[in-house]
Amino acid sequence: SDREVLDDISHRRYNPLRGSWILVSPHRAKRPWQGQEETPSETSLPAFDSSCYLCPGNPRAAGGTNPAYPETFVFVNDYSAVKEDQPDYVQPKSGEKLSLLLLQATGVRGKCYVICFNPSHNVTLADMPAEMIVPIIKTWTVLYASHLPKSSPYYQEPVAELRITVPKDQYTYMQIFENKGAAMGCSNPHPHGQAWTTTCIPEEAGLEIQNMKEYKRKHGTGLLKDYVDLEIAKMERVVALNDHFAALCPWWAVWPFETMVICRREVRILPELTKEEQVGLAEIISIVTKKYDNLFETSFPYSMGIHQAPLDSDPEDREACHLHLHFVPPLLRSATVKKFLVGYELMAEPQRDITPEQAAERLRNLRGDEVYRGKL
Amino acid sequence: SDREVLDDISHRRYNPLRGSWILVSPHRAKRPWQGQEETPSETSLPAFDSSCYLCPGNPRAAGGTNPAYPETFVFVNDYSAVKEDQPDYVQPKSGEKLSLLLLQATGVRGKCYVICFNPSHNVTLADMPAEMIVPIIKTWTVLYASHLPKSSPYYQEPVAELRITVPKDQYTYMQIFENKGAAMGCSNPHPHGQAWTTTCIPEEAGLEIQNMKEYKRKHGTGLLKDYVDLEIAKMERVVALNDHFAALCPWWAVWPFETMVICRREVRILPELTKEEQVGLAEIISIVTKKYDNLFETSFPYSMGIHQAPLDSDPEDREACHLHLHFVPPLLRSATVKKFLVGYELMAEPQRDITPEQAAERLRNLRGDEVYRGKL
Ligand SMILES: O=P(O)(O)O[C@H]1O[C@H](CO)[C@@H](O)[C@H](O)[C@H]1O
Ligand SMILES: O=P(O)(O)O[C@H]1O[C@H](CO)[C@@H](O)[C@H](O)[C@H]1O
Repeated sequence: SDREVLDDISHRRYNPLRGSWILVSPHRAKRPWQGQEETPSETSLPAFDSSCYLCPGNPRAAGGTNPAYPETFVFVNDYSAVKEDQPDYVQPKSGEKLSLLLLQATGVRGKCYVICFNPSHNVTLADMPAEMIVPIIKTWTVLYASHLPKSSPYYQEPVAELRITVPKDQYTYMQIFENKGAAMGCSNPHPHGQAWTTTCIPEEAGLEIQNMKEYKRKHGTGLLKDYVDLEIAKMERVVALNDHFAALCPWWAVWPFETMVICRREVRILPELTKEEQVGLAEIISIVTKKYDNLFETSFPYSMGIHQAPLDSDPEDREACHLHLHFVPPLLRSATVKKFLVGYELMAEPQRDITPEQAAERLRNLRGDEVYRGKL
Repeated sequence: SDREVLDDISHRRYNPLRGSWILVSPHRAKRPWQGQEETPSETSLPAFDSSCYLCPGNPRAAGGTNPAYPETFVFVNDYSAVKEDQPDYVQPKSGEKLSLLLLQATGVRGKCYVICFNPSHNVTLADMPAEMIVPIIKTWTVLYASHLPKSSPYYQEPVAELRITVPKDQYTYMQIFENKGAAMGCSNPHPHGQAWTTTCIPEEAGLEIQNMKEYKRKHGTGLLKDYVDLEIAKMERVVALNDHFAALCPWWAVWPFETMVICRREVRILPELTKEEQVGLAEIISIVTKKYDNLFETSFPYSMGIHQAPLDSDPEDREACHLHLHFVPPLLRSATVKKFLVGYELMAEPQRDITPEQAAERLRNLRGDEVYRGKL
C-alpha cells in the first residue's frame, strides 16, 4: 500500500494551506543523538508564587497590580512588540530607484495582550478539565469580538470584566497564541497566552488565506472543510475527535508531533461558535494537551496559534477562512531531545524524521483523559 | 532621517529575495529576560579526541575508519536524510479526487555528504586564518563541480582526494551548510559541514530563484548585484568588505545578528570563482566568524548555508542566480540568551527586536582579525 511505501522512503509532501513542500525521511529516526538536551520543566511549582508577575494580587514589571481574578485575566503587554501610538511612517514614493525597490518598509501599529488562563500558578491546559478551558475560550472570543468593526454582526462591546479599552483604530488582524515551556521561549510557567493585534495581515495568515481563497475559487468548496472530512473518513492521522472538532497530525506536518485542531463546521471566527462548539473545542484542547504530556511523561512544550478570519478584510478573504489551531511542539524522542530545525531546514526545506501517520498512531494510543506525569 | 524614525517605531520590512515581510520592534530590546539560558560551548577541547567519529584515524558510527587526512575530508553521511537507492514513488494520477488534491507526495532521492573542515578537533572557522579556509572552499567547489552535468563547462571528474563515488543519476540541487554549536542542533564540535544533494529544488532555494528571475525579467539587472552595490554605496549595513565579497546585515534580516555574504561579481556557482575570489571569500568568512565570536565572547553558534544555481536547471533559472551565503545565528543578548522564533513568529510573522543597522554597527566595531575569547 501507499502507506507502506511512504513509511520507508524519502519523499516530499505538499502543504496546500501554505503552498509549500516538506522533506520526510522516515528511516532517519534511528540516528543516534549526542547533542544538546533540554531541561524538562519543574514539576513541583507552588499554586501561588509571590514573585510571579501574573499571579493574582501581585505587582507587574511595568507597574500596576493584578486583580484577584477568579478565572482569566487580560492586560496589555508591558513590552508590546507593536504600539498604538507612534509617528507615522510611509515609504517615500520617489527617490533613488534601487532604494525604493530593495529597502522597503512600512509602519505597523497595534496592541498586544497577555491572557492569564487561570489564577493558579502551577496548572497548564493539560492539567485542566474541559470545564476549566471553557472560560479561556470565552475570553479569547470576547477579546476577538470586541476588536471587530462595529458593523460586524459578531461585534461585542468590550465587557467590563476584560478591563481593557479597545483601541480607537480599527486593526486588521488578531493572532492569538501560546508559548508553553522554556524550550519554546516562555519565561514564566504561569499558564498564559498572548494576542497581538496589528494594522497588517501577518505573512503566515496571509499565505493561508490566499491558498484557501484560490482553492475555493477553483473547487467551490472549502480547503479545510474538505480536508477535515477526508481525514475523518480515513482515520489514519486523526488523534482525537468529537462532534464539533477534530485533532490530527496533518499530512504535511513539519514538527515531529505537530497537530492541527480543525472545526468540523465551516466557521470563520471564534465568535461564530455555538455554546456546544465552545465546549467541544475545550474538550479537544484538553485531550490533545494531556496526550502531549503523556507522550514523554513531561510537561510538553509547544507553541499554539489560532487562525481565524481577519478582523477586517474583504468578504472573499473572510469567506475563505476556516477556524483552526496549530500546535507545534519541538520534542522528538524524549522529554529532553528535541528536533532542531536548523541548517538544511532554514536554508533549503523543512525536514522531518518520522511520518505524520506514525506520530498520530502514538498520540492516538495515549490517554487523553488524565495526565500520568508524576503519577507513575 | 528615515533611519531615526525606523529606529524607534514598529515597522515591517520587505525581503525581495523571499517575497515576504518581517516585523521589526526596535523598542522591544529593553524587555527583561527570565527564560531559558543556553549552555555556552566548551572552550577547552583537545586537538584530538579518540571518541570523535570525525577525527583522523578514528572509527565511524556505521563502520569504516577515517583516513589520516591533512586538510579536509568528505564522506557520505551515515544517517543520510535522502537515499540514492529506494523504491520509486509517484503519486497515482487517478483515484479519489480529494486525496489527489490534499494528500500529495512525491519520492525524493539524493546523497548527503559530511565535510570535515580540518583534522584538528578543537578549531572552528573563527579560529582559522583565511589560508586555512581556502582548502574548505576548494573542497566545496570540487564537490559541487563533480555533481554538475558532464556537459557543463564547470564539470570536474571527482578527484581521488575526495574518495567518493559520484552518483550515477544527475541530481538537481546541492545545499551546502554548516550547523555550528549545540544551540543549532550540532552534536559534534569537530569542525564540519554538510552537503545534501537531491532530485528536487528545495523550497527556500526555489523561492529565491523565482524572485531573482522575476526581478531580472522586470528590471534587466540582477537582484543581488543591485543589492550588494546599493549596500556598498550606503555602508550602513555592511560589516566586512574586500574586493570580491561583502558581508552585511540584510535590510530584511530575521535573526538578531543574521548576515549575508554576497559575491560582488555576478557569479552563479562556486566553480566560477577565480583563485583571488576564493581567497576573498575565505577572508570574509574568517572575518565574519571572528566578529561573531567576539560579539559575546563565546564560540558563536549559527547555521550557515551557501545558495548557488541548481546543479541542473533551465538556463533562465541559472542565469538569475547569484552566489551568496546566509549566516543565521540565534543569540540575542549574550552567550546564553538567544532569540526564540516561536509563537507569533511561527503562526504569524518573523519578528526581531533590534534593527539590522544597529546589529551591523555592533559587528562592524568588533575586531575581525583575532578572537578575544579566552584572551581577555
Ligand atoms: O545531520 P545532523 O547534524 O545530525 O542534524 C542536524 O542537522 C540537520 C540538518 O539541518 C537537521 O535535520 C537535524 O535536526 C539537526 O540535528
Ligand atoms: O513575549 P514573550 O513571551 O516574552 O516572548 C516570547 O514570545 C514572542 C512571541 O512569539 C517572541 O517574539 C519571543 O522571542 C519569545 O521569547
